[in-house]
Amino acid sequence: MTDYQTIDVSDLSIFTINVFKSIGCSSRDAALAADVLLRADLRGIDSHGVARLEGYVRLYENKRINTKPNIRLSREKKGVFTIDGDAGLGLVVAPKAMETAIEKTFQYGNSYGAVHNSNHFGIAAYHAMMALEHGFIGMAMTNASPLVAPTFSRERMLGTNPICYAIPAGKQAPFVLDMATSAAANGKLEIAERKNLPVPEGWLETKNGATTKDPKDLKEGGYLLPLGSDKDHGSHKGYGLGALVDILSGVLSGASFGPWAPPFVSFLPVLPDMPGKGIGHFVGAMDIDGFIEKQDFLDRMDQWILRFKNAKPVNNEEPVIIHGEPEAEMHVQRAKNGIPLTGKVAASLVTLAEKYHIEHPFN
Amino acid sequence: MTDYQTIDVSDLSIFTINVFKSIGCSSRDAALAADVLLRADLRGIDSHGVARLEGYVRLYENKRINTKPNIRLSREKKGVFTIDGDAGLGLVVAPKAMETAIEKTFQYGNSYGAVHNSNHFGIAAYHAMMALEHGFIGMAMTNASPLVAPTFSRERMLGTNPICYAIPAGKQAPFVLDMATSAAANGKLEIAERKNLPVPEGWLETKNGATTKDPKDLKEGGYLLPLGSDKDHGSHKGYGLGALVDILSGVLSGASFGPWAPPFVSFLPVLPDMPGKGIGHFVGAMDIDGFIEKQDFLDRMDQWILRFKNAKPVNNEEPVIIHGEPEAEMHVQRAKNGIPLTGKVAASLVTLAEKYHIEHPFN
Repeated sequence: MTDYQTIDVSDLSIFTINVFKSIGCSSRDAALAADVLLRADLRGIDSHGVARLEGYVRLYENKRINTKPNIRLSREKKGVFTIDGDAGLGLVVAPKAMETAIEKTFQYGNSYGAVHNSNHFGIAAYHAMMALEHGFIGMAMTNASPLVAPTFSRERMLGTNPICYAIPAGKQAPFVLDMATSAAANGKLEIAERKNLPVPEGWLETKNGATTKDPKDLKEGGYLLPLGSDKDHGSHKGYGLGALVDILSGVLSGASFGPWAPPFVSFLPVLPDMPGKGIGHFVGAMDIDGFIEKQDFLDRMDQWILRFKNAKPVNNEEPVIIHGEPEAEMHVQRAKNGIPLTGKVAASLVTLAEKYHIEHPFN
Repeated sequence: MTDYQTIDVSDLSIFTINVFKSIGCSSRDAALAADVLLRADLRGIDSHGVARLEGYVRLYENKRINTKPNIRLSREKKGVFTIDGDAGLGLVVAPKAMETAIEKTFQYGNSYGAVHNSNHFGIAAYHAMMALEHGFIGMAMTNASPLVAPTFSRERMLGTNPICYAIPAGKQAPFVLDMATSAAANGKLEIAERKNLPVPEGWLETKNGATTKDPKDLKEGGYLLPLGSDKDHGSHKGYGLGALVDILSGVLSGASFGPWAPPFVSFLPVLPDMPGKGIGHFVGAMDIDGFIEKQDFLDRMDQWILRFKNAKPVNNEEPVIIHGEPEAEMHVQRAKNGIPLTGKVAASLVTLAEKYHIEHPFN
């Protein structure tokens, strides 16, 4: 029975900007980082919004984040490039990489960029959706804290390594697929743990490889399972997708990778002998007009979306969902009504307010 | 209890080329199409090799394949483009698209191409791996016969829509992820059905939405489940990946899409009012040298692969698998020892040999 308080978006935004400024971010970077976090809350991805603000501050305090980074293009060849994030907030580094991909897409029709020496970048959808403003298709992925064991192993080797594609439509909401490559995102376990609820079998196993429904087993040395959960149900595919994200974001960029990916979660150590710098991302964009007449594409997307929404449902009360549509609806609703925070999240924000002597809107 | 015969690769290749020539392919196209099919058999993907030769012939007989296609670039903008396959064999159209992507990657650092008016293209890995010959990263995907129901639906709306990425390594075999976005590829059900074996729960459901282990239920009006199998285990992610492939391969290219994708399997009808032409593919390539020094990347890939191969296994006899490595080993072995064909597949080839008066190497 969690207690909630609902905070106005602009109040929450001003507060978040002030926290980022307090740890040394420029006004511009603080506003951008806050925008990324607030977008998660607006879209209903509560695990990735201001609930993680204390996590970013903790990384700063542990000297793992440079709040005055010199983010720069370290290599390029026509449409492809690599960005050195200079240990900046991923919330700031990834949008910069995406801006570069968008500029280059105007020049070359498509562009993909790898990023090293970055940190946790928030929701992948924020970055991929930047391309939508230009009518492009956008893509973003990142490696992350090693929590997932490959098929046939019990060792935490991969992050939940999300993949996001954002694709514009006409009258319908854009198609935005933003998915962890594990059976369940870590955020879903955090939420179950906070509510003392069991999770489905197939999400994680204990450190001894036993089946468990207790989300707390992750912190006790257990590991998450890849999408597919077991070999019979295709966990080698989830493992393969997580590996792909790790290779493009980590190996190709010059970042750390696999079990060496520097962790965001505080219960994992930073390993010695890292093969690269920081967390890695991989972003990209493609110009639809190079494939098909733009309006024709938007009409076809609407046709696709309407046909799938009208696929015969198992229950009439539970229609087929189009990826990105529930989040777009939530965005409209929360922008108007405010963002609900659990007592625990609000308390973590009050602690930050007191630490940095910032006015705050929380009860 | 299946009887096998093992056929020398060059004998099987000559036979396959002769079948494609018999239905009107040029020598060059016949050799290419045979190369794609044989590569599947060499890599151990028996469902996608010469076992499907009769399926391509059936499409030709049904006037759905043009064996003398004028495959052409129908639209382009720097690094991105669309190919009109002119109803040709996907086995011939997709390599042509991939050649274009490779040429454009030399020019623009990366290139992605959509294809419409094509047909079943065999294994995605053949096409993606073409990029490896130039040291590039390759990608290939395709939409396909509607067999998969989205989460919350019982209607067959998507193909098993595979995604393939091929990424070079140094001393290790390249990383080649080639996966259906359904819980199991249709080929796996075909193999179970041929052997009268049950399949795991979570692969398919009956037309009434009941759980089943009988692969024959697919042809009785049932449907395949997306990777993840059910909502609790992330089937919305498998559905989302299948949707992504359908949108990039079908909607963006001008091909048919979703439930209208013209079927390869003979138990599905061709629907009226198709929203586009034929099956669609999406291919691409990226120049590693634009991201990182090439040799550095190859060394890092070897480090990645060796670290994952040495991840602590659950059982010592079952080490962690690197995607593409078992297939590379099988290729070496079968190139030397020949390709084993089941009696049923050999019989289907003998039927083709008799129909077209072709000499054949089968018992």
